[in-house]
Amino acid sequence: MGKSYNNISMAVIRRLPKYHRYLKELLDKEVYRISSKELSVMMGFTASQIRQDLNNFGGFGQQGYGYNVEELYGEIKKILGLNNTYGTVIIGAGNLGQAIANYANFQKYGFNLKALFDVNPKMVGIKISDIPVYDVDELQEFTAKNNIEIGVICTPKEFAQDIADKLVKSGVSSIWNFAPVDLDVPEDIIMENVHLSDSLFILSYLLSNNNEEA
Amino acid sequence: MGKSYNNISMAVIRRLPKYHRYLKELLDKEVYRISSKELSVMMGFTASQIRQDLNNFGGFGQQGYGYNVEELYGEIKKILGLNNTYGTVIIGAGNLGQAIANYANFQKYGFNLKALFDVNPKMVGIKISDIPVYDVDELQEFTAKNNIEIGVICTPKEFAQDIADKLVKSGVSSIWNFAPVDLDVPEDIIMENVHLSDSLFILSYLLSNNNEEA
Repeated sequence: MGKSYNNISMAVIRRLPKYHRYLKELLDKEVYRISSKELSVMMGFTASQIRQDLNNFGGFGQQGYGYNVEELYGEIKKILGLNNTYGTVIIGAGNLGQAIANYANFQKYGFNLKALFDVNPKMVGIKISDIPVYDVDELQEFTAKNNIEIGVICTPKEFAQDIADKLVKSGVSSIWNFAPVDLDVPEDIIMENVHLSDSLFILSYLLSNNNEEA
Repeated sequence: MGKSYNNISMAVIRRLPKYHRYLKELLDKEVYRISSKELSVMMGFTASQIRQDLNNFGGFGQQGYGYNVEELYGEIKKILGLNNTYGTVIIGAGNLGQAIANYANFQKYGFNLKALFDVNPKMVGIKISDIPVYDVDELQEFTAKNNIEIGVICTPKEFAQDIADKLVKSGVSSIWNFAPVDLDVPEDIIMENVHLSDSLFILSYLLSNNNEEA
């Protein structure tokens, strides 16, 4: 199968989606070749940073030619694991859960959304973007039976730990958590948090320091 | 007014919301005093990291006593600028815009949501959590007149740059961007991005490397 990249620092890994995003944009504009210098101006990284980052994966540029955008995009997709498919469920079918279910990139990149779950009897039984909403009581059984790898938690924070426990018991390998709380899970579970308020508070920090400067 | 903290690294700043979150949780559990050791176990930072982080702001602990949770929480709130209020608008009243409008922390921490804007005539005129939805054509005038500081972009990515331009022209100081695209804005505009797919792609990277290890 593919290569494994276990000794690459998370700092490098966390920059890869940005490469993915910019290369996709270039392809959409039918740009097929780009120098590390041009890429660096677009992305706000130095050209040497870009060469270093990509060298971690074998390096894809050619001296005097630059990068083949299509090839580089394909490689980065592969490195990011976006050629695989992942059985996915969303818990919490409120606005946020629905926003994520409708999120265009979700299905396109292999995140195969199989069901949403909610406690609200008005939601149970309906479909969102053609995906059924089930009662949260059915979560464990469904997840175990359907080979689900990713559980997306979009519940209020009071319920998030309980949901995480159920997901772990039913065998998911990873949790994408939107509840504003850090969850306790076994070490082998991959946990990726999106703490919206953390990002908002950084904004207010920058705003309030900015104002004081002025 | 308050102190300004311009020479503190963004790495430290980006950890502050996590302190805020954990201290808030301690207060909710009526824990009023904590050692840096206990805090470090909870948060997964080393005790020395915690002392270093907090020393940037003058240090709040007392040898042999630890931290007064309420005091420390209050200080971190102040440092994060959460004692101020910020006039805020959301552009894009779809699921994501609504999720953010309903987000409990929004109003509580001084983000004073004044209006949502949308292109959809079915949305214009309704209220979401008591906040009016206006036609996006009214964005510039409303924003300029109402002393809006934060524009939250929840539109599809095709419209995001145009909205950002309008926000800048009408005088906002900062943009909280949820559209999956990096926006061009003048240097003095504070830009905080929440690229959901970046986070999802990190998850798939970790998942696919994890699978190959096994």
